[in-house]
Formats: sequence, C-alpha cells, structure tokens
Amino acid sequence: MLNLFYAAHTCALASHIALEEAGADYTLTRISFAGADQRKPDYLKINPKGRVPALVTDRGVLTETPAMLAYIAQSYPQAKLAPLQDPFAFAQAQAFNSYLCSSLHVAHAHRMRGYRWVEADDTHAIEAMKKKVPQSVYDGFALVEQHMLAGPWVLGESYTICDAYLFTLAQWLEADGVDPARLPRVAEHRRRVADRPAVMRAIAAELAA
Amino acid sequence: MLNLFYAAHTCALASHIALEEAGADYTLTRISFAGADQRKPDYLKINPKGRVPALVTDRGVLTETPAMLAYIAQSYPQAKLAPLQDPFAFAQAQAFNSYLCSSLHVAHAHRMRGYRWVEADDTHAIEAMKKKVPQSVYDGFALVEQHMLAGPWVLGESYTICDAYLFTLAQWLEADGVDPARLPRVAEHRRRVADRPAVMRAIAAELAA
Ligand SMILES: N[C@@H](CCC(=O)N[C@@H](CS)C(=O)NCC(=O)O)C(=O)O
Ligand SMILES: N[C@@H](CCC(=O)N[C@@H](CS)C(=O)NCC(=O)O)C(=O)O
Repeated sequence: MLNLFYAAHTCALASHIALEEAGADYTLTRISFAGADQRKPDYLKINPKGRVPALVTDRGVLTETPAMLAYIAQSYPQAKLAPLQDPFAFAQAQAFNSYLCSSLHVAHAHRMRGYRWVEADDTHAIEAMKKKVPQSVYDGFALVEQHMLAGPWVLGESYTICDAYLFTLAQWLEADGVDPARLPRVAEHRRRVADRPAVMRAIAAELAA
Repeated sequence: MLNLFYAAHTCALASHIALEEAGADYTLTRISFAGADQRKPDYLKINPKGRVPALVTDRGVLTETPAMLAYIAQSYPQAKLAPLQDPFAFAQAQAFNSYLCSSLHVAHAHRMRGYRWVEADDTHAIEAMKKKVPQSVYDGFALVEQHMLAGPWVLGESYTICDAYLFTLAQWLEADGVDPARLPRVAEHRRRVADRPAVMRAIAAELAA
C-alpha cells in the first residue's frame, strides 16, 4: 500500500493527481508547513531532505517529483501516463519534468525560500529575490508556452504525468505575480487539466484532509 | 548517430561519461561559454533554454541531464548503467539524479549565475548569493554523504548513471569553497569514479577538443 506525504498547495499535488489518474490504492498523510512539520524528527526519518512529497512504498520511500511520477506511470502501465515503450519519447517526458523541477519550481522557490541561497537575515537580498520572481517565473513558463507544449497535452495527443506536473506549477502563477493571460497556451492547458475528474478528486481530497 | 553538445567543466560531463561507459557511437561538439555560444541563435535552435548539455539524436534533441542519463542507460541496456528491470530501483536512481539536478546543481549555480534570480546589477544580492554557496553546497553534499551513498557506488554494488552524475558535480567542490575532506565518503567515491577508464577517456576528450 502506498502512502503519500504532502502539504497543501505544494508540488506534491502532481504525484497525488498521478496516483488518482492511475487508480492506485493509496492513503494520504497531510503535514503542515505552518507547524514546520517537515523539519520535525519524525518526518526527517521519512525524508531527510525535509520536503514534500514523499511516497512510502513497501520497498522504501521515494522522493523527488519527477522520479515519483515516472514510478507511478511504470507501476500502473494500464493507465498510460507515460510513453513507457519508447525510450526517446520517455526521455522527452523526463526532460520536461526535469526542467519543471530544476528551473520552474526553483524560480518560484525564490519567493518564499530565499534563505536557502542567502543568509536569512539579509533583508535586502531576500527582497531582491522576491522582486525578480514575476520575471523569472514568467520567463520559465514562456519557454514552455513557446517550445514545450505540443498540444492539446504537453506531449501531444496523450495526457501524461507531464500534464499533472505542469498544471500543479501553473497553480502558483498568480501568487508569483504572473498574469496567466500572458501565457494563453499554458492557461488553456491549465483549464483543460482542471476539468479532469481525477484532478478534481485530488484537489478536493487535499483540502478536505 | 548521437551528437553531444557540451562546454568544458559543466554538468555535460555526466552525459559524456555515460555515453563513453555505454560504448555508444557519438560525436562531440564543444561550445564556449566565454564566447557566449549558448545564447547564439544557432545554438538556441538546438536548445532554446540556452544551456548544455544537449544530445542530438535521429529523432530530435534531448536536454536535461537526468533525462539524458536515463535515455543512455535505456538505449544501451547491455552496459547495465541503471536498474532498468525494477521500477522501484529505477525510481531511486531517478530520485538521486533529480535531487542532484534540482538542489545540488542549483546551489552551485548561485555562485556564477545569480542574475537568474536577482537583477544583474544588484551587487549586494549577487555577492550575498556567492557568499552562501560554500554552505549551501556543503549542506547538499552532506545529505548525500549521510543518506544517499550506499557504497561503494551510489546505489550499492553496481556502478550506474548516478555515479557519473555525482562525480561530475563533485568536481566543483573546491571552486565552490567546500573542502572535500569534510565529505570523506563523497571524496572517496570521487576517486573511485576517477579511476574508471571511461571517465578518464571522457575527461581527456573534453579537454582535447
Ligand atoms: N525537488 C523536489 C522539491 C520538493 C520541494 O521543495 N517541495 C516543497 C513544497 S513545493 C517543500 O517541501 N518545501 C518545504 C521547505 O522548503 O521547508 C521535488 O520536485 O519533489
Ligand atoms: N537542468 C539542466 C541544467 C543545465 C545547465 O544549467 N547547464 C549549465 C552548465 S553546468 C549551463 O549551460 N549554463 C550556461 C548558462 O547559464 O548560460 C541539466 O541538468 O541539464
């Protein structure tokens, strides 16, 4: 049985959606960032990085969104959540997810987590990072808009884990100071994903817990 | 035929090592950061992100180190560069690579590429980022040292793409102001990888071109 550790409104939603799309048998454990649960000893035993998501499996714990998404797709092949039979197409999916993880998500993190990269009490530097977020997040999404969104889904005709991940990060656009109207294809993709029953169920479950 | 675009002393070395370990038939194209080749229109046609590595294949271009490493491992299964038959073990490899890509590499990037996240002319903020690099890079590697290095190789008894990637990022420790002696297991791993003939060939080829 799988157990997904998550916090609301985080990148964990991508894995949650994938589990729901796959029809997986799983439970959810919500932790609270307001309570700093992610830094408590009990949670650090699950994920020493002090982050969500973490997926507890019978064989051990998995972390890192791109790895978890690929694992879910491979574990439930009948859900067809990734082009598993074609190493090149699979690599394209992985490249997309890796870009989201290492560039888009990281640009966003400079708004609330600037202390990772400068001293926490350096108010000027922390503010300087916050100020650049609307630009750096927009630039990252503009690359997606122009080069990485085949349409109607990220990889083309089939809905995949890439769509769940893009949707999840696109939820943060407004809070990051980016007007989605400047990214019409990303905004339309977001609406298309939001209409999926599995996505609605995941969002409802996240907020109900 | 594969063609790897790289710049010297970058994360592209990981993919280069993997190609060499796999016995792949490939060519190398070196670009120069000093000449800002990565931002020239010809290169942006290959990789609109303006980064290395990029792997040109018969089916199109692949980017993002974790995706390229997995692609090389899957394309040359006889080289046994990843646990391809076991989705959980494969996910562990992917999680390791995703952490390197999104956390370790990103911590390092704040030394030379701070302008991605603050205005380029904000000298105070740029310097504040540089100053934190020895700490944030050390912290990232300390997690690897304590929790992610099964030994003798990253995943245990078998050498994989994870080793090539860890080795590549560990090459930057001194320049990032981290004394490798503080990370004895990472340092020993680095020596072990450096002794591999394929790794020596890749490094020699990189510098010869
Ligand atoms: N590379 C990881 C990043 C995970 C991550 O940073 N998660 C955030 C939430 S979106 C978190 O747990 N932040 C808590 C903290 O920094 O204390 C992934 O993609 O899963
Ligand atoms: N997430 C990418 C990052 C690629 C990346 O940032 N590469 C650096 C070299 S290590 C680069 O091309 N920098 C050039 C620049 O920023 O202009 C990957 O892991 O492949």
